[in-house]
Amino acid sequence: MYSVNVRDHFMIAHTFRGDVFGPAQRLHGATYVVDLELHRAELDADGVVVDIALATEVLRAVVSELNLRNLDDDPAFEGLNTTTEFMARVIFDRVAARIEKGELGPHASGLSSLRVKLHESHVAWAAYEGALPARSR
Amino acid sequence: MYSVNVRDHFMIAHTFRGDVFGPAQRLHGATYVVDLELHRAELDADGVVVDIALATEVLRAVVSELNLRNLDDDPAFEGLNTTTEFMARVIFDRVAARIEKGELGPHASGLSSLRVKLHESHVAWAAYEGALPARSR
Amino acid sequence: MYSVNVRDHFMIAHTFRGDVFGPAQRLHGATYVVDLELHRAELDADGVVVDIALATEVLRAVVSELNLRNLDDDPAFEGLNTTTEFMARVIFDRVAARIEKGELGPHASGLSSLRVKLHESHVAWAAYEGALPARSR
Amino acid sequence: MYSVNVRDHFMIAHTFRGDVFGPAQRLHGATYVVDLELHRAELDADGVVVDIALATEVLRAVVSELNLRNLDDDPAFEGLNTTTEFMARVIFDRVAARIEKGELGPHASGLSSLRVKLHESHVAWAAYEGALPARSR
Amino acid sequence: MYSVNVRDHFMIAHTFRGDVFGPAQRLHGATYVVDLELHRAELDADGVVVDIALATEVLRAVVSELNLRNLDDDPAFEGLNTTTEFMARVIFDRVAARIEKGELGPHASGLSSLRVKLHESHVAWAAYEGALPARSR
Amino acid sequence: MYSVNVRDHFMIAHTFRGDVFGPAQRLHGATYVVDLELHRAELDADGVVVDIALATEVLRAVVSELNLRNLDDDPAFEGLNTTTEFMARVIFDRVAARIEKGELGPHASGLSSLRVKLHESHVAWAAYEGALPARSR
Repeated sequence: MYSVNVRDHFMIAHTFRGDVFGPAQRLHGATYVVDLELHRAELDADGVVVDIALATEVLRAVVSELNLRNLDDDPAFEGLNTTTEFMARVIFDRVAARIEKGELGPHASGLSSLRVKLHESHVAWAAYEGALPARSR
Repeated sequence: MYSVNVRDHFMIAHTFRGDVFGPAQRLHGATYVVDLELHRAELDADGVVVDIALATEVLRAVVSELNLRNLDDDPAFEGLNTTTEFMARVIFDRVAARIEKGELGPHASGLSSLRVKLHESHVAWAAYEGALPARSR
Repeated sequence: MYSVNVRDHFMIAHTFRGDVFGPAQRLHGATYVVDLELHRAELDADGVVVDIALATEVLRAVVSELNLRNLDDDPAFEGLNTTTEFMARVIFDRVAARIEKGELGPHASGLSSLRVKLHESHVAWAAYEGALPARSR
Repeated sequence: MYSVNVRDHFMIAHTFRGDVFGPAQRLHGATYVVDLELHRAELDADGVVVDIALATEVLRAVVSELNLRNLDDDPAFEGLNTTTEFMARVIFDRVAARIEKGELGPHASGLSSLRVKLHESHVAWAAYEGALPARSR
Repeated sequence: MYSVNVRDHFMIAHTFRGDVFGPAQRLHGATYVVDLELHRAELDADGVVVDIALATEVLRAVVSELNLRNLDDDPAFEGLNTTTEFMARVIFDRVAARIEKGELGPHASGLSSLRVKLHESHVAWAAYEGALPARSR
Repeated sequence: MYSVNVRDHFMIAHTFRGDVFGPAQRLHGATYVVDLELHRAELDADGVVVDIALATEVLRAVVSELNLRNLDDDPAFEGLNTTTEFMARVIFDRVAARIEKGELGPHASGLSSLRVKLHESHVAWAAYEGALPARSR
């Protein structure tokens, strides 16, 4: 199995609801450094997992929708806690949707799965990994 | 699959027995930077893999039992080489036991597996990954 | 010249005012990983720059006043942009004030200067370095 | 499952062929920081995954064959794009061949798989992971 | 003294001339991860050292002139060894020239000095630090 | 001012004496990742601060004298606390002595100062920086 990883980041504000969050129920924020890892069983004819320039652009497009915003104001997250692990899944879903739309180009047809990891500090991170829908492959 | 990771460290002295260890048979020591990665198929109702504050406390409790000690003096390791990979398993077992006792709270019931990684320098690390016992899940 | 550095972090929300900030004028947030570096010409009788446990506690106390908050709501920052470089100075001033109050213990009498560095992402950081007031030394 | 990882690096020049590579079709170069991760179900009698000194030597030997060279001049890569993911596989194959020859010593008989990760910058890396041939195990 | 740092990278091929370089006299290459650190005694009216978006653009412009090229073919470096420390100075000079031309905007008038650090691997880096010409300040 | 940095590491056991050290008075240990930074006003005729291969060898020689040992058994440290900041100075002095003996070659005659930084964990490090004796320059 081959993997390629590209990195970007975004900076957001949010609150959490639930006693388990303690003082994080207050309005605060985070920098999320994002690693998007793309998996593929074999290399394509050019010898790559994916066009890394396109992968960088797709990740940039997805994080730009979230960057420098208060996630509490985003209707997509209404009634949900935008925890680090939850946001990893959000980015997974949005990247997967763009792959289905063909934004990663013809190379992406061989991709089998993705892993999205969000680093929230030097001591904590969260990730979501899943297979790509059949149509993407 | 979702993951959450918390990081801590501990500093120990020890010796190794066996010609394979060369000069590491002498009394020496190490800083181990520990990554505890917890895995879960789905998020709970709060949108989390685990209560990260409790996970941090549990990891702190486990490394505190080892920190600032000579592992050669610990009866638990008598006759054993406390290599980095061995210590990764020790921490896995001790965290798993605390999860079984309920120290991670009700959230932890959905955890499926753990990965413990110990960084011993900027060029070497070791890890142990395994499923949690049925009762933990 | 000797240096000792301890690291912690805090997570905040804020807005910036001024066209230079572009989309960062919206409510957003950041994780700041903080490095507090303490400088001293000579080691004390115990062979240390400072009691590192006390330095860790003082840094923790200072970042706890800011952690998990919206800086826009803090009267201390009214009418000011809480940029990364500005917050580095805020932490410098608050650590220096605690040193003057004796919170770093008798060891701290030899400290000559501090450097506070705030990492806001994997590609950007800011710092403030300055001498300690005469009374601290 | 246990893992042990050792790190080294090498610095090469190369060109890529194919429009997908854009300006990287020009002669350029890269530093590859290499992580060699070795996997094993159980520890051996000494409590290790592998003799880490030998693993470091084997990785050093493999990267030395590539270090400080123009990969375009290497007959092994004629007509191929020496992308980061491709080179991860090259190093995997060469380490696996040395394991088969016994260069990792008797400890290595229990190794089940390897992962080779090449970091090409602070924002991009690629990896190849695969099982070791039956004879190695 | 305040500092702000932005990071980028570039990937080049080159050779070195002189016995001191040993096998690095062969055509090879490097990834340089670049840190551009800008220094200023006091913050401006917006509370910043420099417009960080402009600093990122200027650094990007400077590294783009060098990225994905064979430095041996660049007339600017004819007869010179493009070592890591030499390239740190090249980037310093080119950023300083752009500051003189006003590319960092009115904020940059207060900048006193720059430090450019080039990381060539996980174990080696080089830097050049110098004052800005009087006109820049 | 130019700088070049090389990195290595060593792993030791030791105890500290004095109530300020709390539980670190017990026998324990540390991994020290060492950065040796060499400073020089101008590059030499080859375009380098120092022969980086020789600098790497000298650092390796110095840390090898300490690596995989109990510092409490070393007569050089009798009656002294081998704290991180103290060990940074020890390495500074030993590297400086080797420079005086000519081990860095003719290039080293222009070196003005050194900085030695020891990373003891992901959250703490210490350093010593000083001028080289006149004879070295």
